[in-house]
Amino acid sequence: MATTTETPMTEMPRHECWALVREAVVGRLATVLDGQPDIFPVNHVVDHGSVVIRTAKGAKLMGAAGHPVAFEVDGYDVEHRSAWSVVVKGRAVELTRLDDVLDAMELPLFPWHSSSKPHFLRIEASEVTGRRFVVAGGADEVETP
Amino acid sequence: MATTTETPMTEMPRHECWALVREAVVGRLATVLDGQPDIFPVNHVVDHGSVVIRTAKGAKLMGAAGHPVAFEVDGYDVEHRSAWSVVVKGRAVELTRLDDVLDAMELPLFPWHSSSKPHFLRIEASEVTGRRFVVAGGADEVETP
Repeated sequence: MATTTETPMTEMPRHECWALVREAVVGRLATVLDGQPDIFPVNHVVDHGSVVIRTAKGAKLMGAAGHPVAFEVDGYDVEHRSAWSVVVKGRAVELTRLDDVLDAMELPLFPWHSSSKPHFLRIEASEVTGRRFVVAGGADEVETP
Repeated sequence: MATTTETPMTEMPRHECWALVREAVVGRLATVLDGQPDIFPVNHVVDHGSVVIRTAKGAKLMGAAGHPVAFEVDGYDVEHRSAWSVVVKGRAVELTRLDDVLDAMELPLFPWHSSSKPHFLRIEASEVTGRRFVVAGGADEVETP
């Protein structure tokens, strides 16, 4: 773990990042469509070093399939006043082969809501980064510019 | 409120979206830098129909300042098994005039961690959308493709 001297921020090792992605119930998928950023809450599972989500047709699928995406999970530990965030970056690939879709259907991936979501996207992680922060306590800790 | 017949998803009116953004402790900022999406957890405040965040130098500032961004907050209501998400889209503008910076410093905007974050970004909202979902309960509700 690397801790900077300037701030109580800690970079997490890769295995800890993946453990937190696995445990997280909700993540957010950031996409680019026609140069515009967008962001979607998603359910996900981790499968062999990739993140799998399911989706309906629409902007999320169009912006993600075949394109670079960023996926984020975060959390806040009230007791220890620390927050953490993990970001997984990589290309999202839509699963189209029947074998791949059947494999994905075996994953414990429940959609956030129950509309029809027949498409599966797999994010092949090319970069995984995670940080923990000690949360600033209040006005006394807010610096002036 | 508009409810589709296909899914227990409800679009929220604009005032309800803003109320949820105001209450949220943490949001996520999605940016595009060199065509690549990125996503950052941020603290924020709502000020006159815009979202204000503070940041250090770096990828977040570069990807956001002067560019379109998407900002998201979400939550989960365990008791009612409903989840919600609000997305604010617009151009992020870095505050550079002394008056604007001093005004922003008056906002109750505490940084998530206590490193130096002398830059303020204001997201002028051009689009605000929010949705509530009834969360799928388990395997019985997962459709086959």
